[in-house]
Amino acid sequence: MADISDRDPLVLFMPSGKRGRFPVGTPVLDAARQLGVYVESVCGGRATCGRCQVSVQEGNFAKHGITSSNNHLSPVGPKEERYDRVRGLAEGRRLSCSVQILGDLVIDVPQDTVINAQVVRKAVDERVFERNPAVRMCYVEVEEPDMEKPLGDLDRLKAALAADWHFENVEVDFHLIPKVQSILRKGEWKVTAAIHKDADGDRPRLIALYPGLKNEAYGIACDIGSTTIAMHLSSLLSGRTIASAGTSNPQIRFGEDLMSRVSYVMMNPDGREAMTIAVREALNTLIDRVCADGEISRSDILDSVFVGNPIMHHLFLGIDPTELGGAPFALAVSEAVQVRSSDIGLPMNEGTRTYILPCIAGHVGADAAAATLSEGPHRQDEMMLMVDIGTNAEIVLGNAARVVAASSPTGPAFEGAEISSGQRAAPGAIERIRIDPVTLEPRFRVIGVEPWSDEPGFAEASAATGVTGICGSGIIEVIGEMFLAGLISEDGVVDGSLAERSPRVLADGRTFSYLVHEGSPRILVTQNDVRAIQLAKAALYAGVKLLMDKQGVEHVDRIGLAGAFGTFIDPKYALILGLVPDCDLAKVKAVGNAAGTGARMCLLNRDYRREIEETVKRIDKIETALEPKFQEHFVAAMALPNKVDGFPNLEAVVKLPERKAGADAATEGGRRRRRTRD
Amino acid sequence: MADISDRDPLVLFMPSGKRGRFPVGTPVLDAARQLGVYVESVCGGRATCGRCQVSVQEGNFAKHGITSSNNHLSPVGPKEERYDRVRGLAEGRRLSCSVQILGDLVIDVPQDTVINAQVVRKAVDERVFERNPAVRMCYVEVEEPDMEKPLGDLDRLKAALAADWHFENVEVDFHLIPKVQSILRKGEWKVTAAIHKDADGDRPRLIALYPGLKNEAYGIACDIGSTTIAMHLSSLLSGRTIASAGTSNPQIRFGEDLMSRVSYVMMNPDGREAMTIAVREALNTLIDRVCADGEISRSDILDSVFVGNPIMHHLFLGIDPTELGGAPFALAVSEAVQVRSSDIGLPMNEGTRTYILPCIAGHVGADAAAATLSEGPHRQDEMMLMVDIGTNAEIVLGNAARVVAASSPTGPAFEGAEISSGQRAAPGAIERIRIDPVTLEPRFRVIGVEPWSDEPGFAEASAATGVTGICGSGIIEVIGEMFLAGLISEDGVVDGSLAERSPRVLADGRTFSYLVHEGSPRILVTQNDVRAIQLAKAALYAGVKLLMDKQGVEHVDRIGLAGAFGTFIDPKYALILGLVPDCDLAKVKAVGNAAGTGARMCLLNRDYRREIEETVKRIDKIETALEPKFQEHFVAAMALPNKVDGFPNLEAVVKLPERKAGADAATEGGRRRRRTRD
Repeated sequence: MADISDRDPLVLFMPSGKRGRFPVGTPVLDAARQLGVYVESVCGGRATCGRCQVSVQEGNFAKHGITSSNNHLSPVGPKEERYDRVRGLAEGRRLSCSVQILGDLVIDVPQDTVINAQVVRKAVDERVFERNPAVRMCYVEVEEPDMEKPLGDLDRLKAALAADWHFENVEVDFHLIPKVQSILRKGEWKVTAAIHKDADGDRPRLIALYPGLKNEAYGIACDIGSTTIAMHLSSLLSGRTIASAGTSNPQIRFGEDLMSRVSYVMMNPDGREAMTIAVREALNTLIDRVCADGEISRSDILDSVFVGNPIMHHLFLGIDPTELGGAPFALAVSEAVQVRSSDIGLPMNEGTRTYILPCIAGHVGADAAAATLSEGPHRQDEMMLMVDIGTNAEIVLGNAARVVAASSPTGPAFEGAEISSGQRAAPGAIERIRIDPVTLEPRFRVIGVEPWSDEPGFAEASAATGVTGICGSGIIEVIGEMFLAGLISEDGVVDGSLAERSPRVLADGRTFSYLVHEGSPRILVTQNDVRAIQLAKAALYAGVKLLMDKQGVEHVDRIGLAGAFGTFIDPKYALILGLVPDCDLAKVKAVGNAAGTGARMCLLNRDYRREIEETVKRIDKIETALEPKFQEHFVAAMALPNKVDGFPNLEAVVKLPERKAGADAATEGGRRRRRTRD
Repeated sequence: MADISDRDPLVLFMPSGKRGRFPVGTPVLDAARQLGVYVESVCGGRATCGRCQVSVQEGNFAKHGITSSNNHLSPVGPKEERYDRVRGLAEGRRLSCSVQILGDLVIDVPQDTVINAQVVRKAVDERVFERNPAVRMCYVEVEEPDMEKPLGDLDRLKAALAADWHFENVEVDFHLIPKVQSILRKGEWKVTAAIHKDADGDRPRLIALYPGLKNEAYGIACDIGSTTIAMHLSSLLSGRTIASAGTSNPQIRFGEDLMSRVSYVMMNPDGREAMTIAVREALNTLIDRVCADGEISRSDILDSVFVGNPIMHHLFLGIDPTELGGAPFALAVSEAVQVRSSDIGLPMNEGTRTYILPCIAGHVGADAAAATLSEGPHRQDEMMLMVDIGTNAEIVLGNAARVVAASSPTGPAFEGAEISSGQRAAPGAIERIRIDPVTLEPRFRVIGVEPWSDEPGFAEASAATGVTGICGSGIIEVIGEMFLAGLISEDGVVDGSLAERSPRVLADGRTFSYLVHEGSPRILVTQNDVRAIQLAKAALYAGVKLLMDKQGVEHVDRIGLAGAFGTFIDPKYALILGLVPDCDLAKVKAVGNAAGTGARMCLLNRDYRREIEETVKRIDKIETALEPKFQEHFVAAMALPNKVDGFPNLEAVVKLPERKAGADAATEGGRRRRRTRD
């Protein structure tokens, strides 16, 4: 490289903000590469793939000391002109491989370049990530064989990859060895090589080879949940999500929750294999669906990323999960795993690899790692709490200085199990509810029905679905509202004395219930229902508190509620019930399928793989079962919202009832449960 | 490491001759490691595997300035005593892991340590190589799982491999991932890991895992010849050859010689696959045989090395060899190939790899590379010629400064094809012959028959086999003897005038034949037979001369004759015929199956893989078809022994006939053939 002086043009790349000075005449693509700015390119600077498009921001950027202008780029040359004529180039777009720097520039690298791309059917997630996929498409022109230099065809291909793409010492997938000669001849010595290189130190690996220019490549990212499986198909070149699909996890027929599946393996000699086959079959069906939807072939999928909780992770990989069923909850493998997809029964392209994120601990899986990557507590100064609530709650708390993680055995109450009128979130389920504190009358909203129950037209609108039960988010709200209306005490006791005031308070043996809806079925909230929610939320809160103790903090700055449950609950009610600690309500957010987002990040940028691997190594794992203070936190958290912790942020928005006397909840809470590990 | 002074003990390791000073108290094994002396060890210094045995040479080694004594080793400690009691330690042997340096030492590292080893059935080759196999057996004790440190079982195993064996960042073969937990528990956290690491820069790879101490590992080395396949089973730990087996190449049913097999592929859509299946089936049968002979299981084979000529190499790997059938004779792959053995249909251990040596050029294969490695022209100052004679002769010429290689299309005459009485080397074939120059009467020896034909008892002894033909080495001798006896001229013309002197010279149309044996069949050497041998030897000699031209040399210092043909011909007759250039007869040697030896070297020491890869890169390949001087050399070489080149070394031992007039051979030699490439 020539010596650079202050007189050389200053070039700033957006959105990365990377900048540097380059001699006049430097191709923009080279400048980007030198600064480590990722700009896709398949054709290797031949102006045929169109992947390296950039645009120039015009104007005076005083902050950067740059006056940027399209005139500071070399004019359109014959190669660019030809591309524009044949393929079309949008207004203002230039091919960075073919255009040179003449003066100061602010250059936009579009993160969603769509070149010859599929129609985007579903916009799953609007987030756009900087890309650096593990698989690169590399067009090369290979020297023809020559008797004087008897190097093999494959070896001349490797020489071209080293010369044009700086991929030295390429390893070759065996399945390609018998095919190389015919592909080279079919492409008349012009081929596109798919090179897989995950980590910087890895040897690059030739995983697929195409005659001519192959200007597209795809990948899938998938979150294997115990209940549902979600898969996204993305272009590795544009980053766009091309198709998405979901299905319920067929392992449900072996056991509703995780521990019943582990039991199934322990009881049945072929149980592990049957569940591995079941999940892989479901995944293959999803792959077929996203391929059909995206109008591509399975063999066009060149990379894949999977996440899941530890038991899903093990069953997916064909590992017996029995060890995860009891202390010390030993994972077979905790670090990230990279395998050939065909080895795990997911044939795509023969050379496709599958990357599986690391697990954090025996109950905190690759899904929690992916959610951490997505929400990035380790990237921010604020102390962030992230909870993913399932049968086990996975809890991560931290900031850039330190991240701690734990799981807490909440049991299935939040999913509607153990609740007398509980049900899955489906049409007919009550999902929203308000109780008038004076009349104690409820009004509610049912999934699939537009009007509230006290609005005109409700009866007609709900005729089709009926009112069939209460889903998870509805249960949180109804107990929160009962507490606000004085129907239950701080200690969770349904106040029987109110039976005099309202026909909805009904005696039920020695305890009382609240009638939400008189119909078929009759929908009640019983004392046992309240207790089940108290036990679940106390377990969650106690886990969070242990992590706060480890961090030495009294409050958290930000809360992310992950997963389906997190998406639908109203953060206000989560605080009223004391599921999570007090926090500025504006900073309590549902983060959706953060695990799926983290998987997509790892698919589109291999640097995220290193980021989460390093982060997981640094995360301190807390085993709640071993912590002496768990019991104390659990007992305090049985109260609504909490026996000892204040909720000032909540009280600024919601008037909480005066504290009443009562102690039974606290003693009952002493019944320590570890449901998922029995 | 502590500072070393001249006062510290001086330790010399034999046979490597590596030496260094070490502080008193340094374990001998550590000293060896620091000097790069390979001493096997499986148990990692626990004195249980017994692999690291050494002995001390007693005495004053003035040349090295060392007075060495067993007293300069620490006394037998409890660990060594226990090993001796339980397993037995030969007189004078010590466990280098458990014994410390107290003073100056000359230490012998036995290269053939036999520890708990199989009985050696066949001593194939007495050569002993320094060992450094690509697969190491590593015993480790793994930390048990701990809730406080939720690292996976596999990850703790990896940590142990890094701590005890310095194998960092181990990759894990996928098939092991589901098995790790049960193996660790079965071994009570003590396991032996088989680590495959080929090149220094490669990531080490866990390919097999055993509960407890696994104190043995095997490998196979195999030369796939177009006619025969030879396989050896060796202990990777002791280096000993445990068993050997050979079989004929079943591809023979698709075509006797290489080019007819290529033609078969070109003519038959399934031809390539059928031949790949055939050779792999034969290899699997051989693997079963060496395993049965060595009393081991296929899964105990953890590494394998294969060599073969380019067409065998391609068919073995499942590559269509059609491109090798015509100019520019493009190899699909020339560099060394490393694959999973199961990927090429050779299931051994699931983790076993197969290494295939590089090919030198389109007609100079991995077998020639292996022979080069074995004979080492590139390691010596003398100019060495190595020829492997088959349908194509592979020729390598060089020394430490430069090595050149070529192939020459000799055709099948040397194998007895195209010769009227030619046959394979089998009982009944004439293999030795002498002709009395006065009487012109022959005496010969037949394979499987002890007496010569003129000795008492020959008729009885040969009754069973009969006298059925002449094998390759017999043909060389009979033509050489005919030349010495004056039966044929320098130009290869059978002298018809001698019919007056001997009833054995018979008219045959316009030419004459020599009757070797009157019987059934009648064994003659015809004028056509002589011509066929002349054409073949002229092609070989012309190829050698081209290489000598490239090297700028007039003579060679040493000649190695490889392969079965090379083993049986008498070097003297090779010179009389002018197959190879003049050379000190004492330095013309049969080198046996040098290709198989090279394969075994690569099996037992991965450094040899690098050596031959680097050497092959540096070898200059000569394409004889492109060399203008080939024709001139060929014509001169049609004469016996040569029209222009002198054979002073030969003439010092053998009186060659006076040169006679005659020119027809030279003109006939103008018929340039490239039999194997038509």
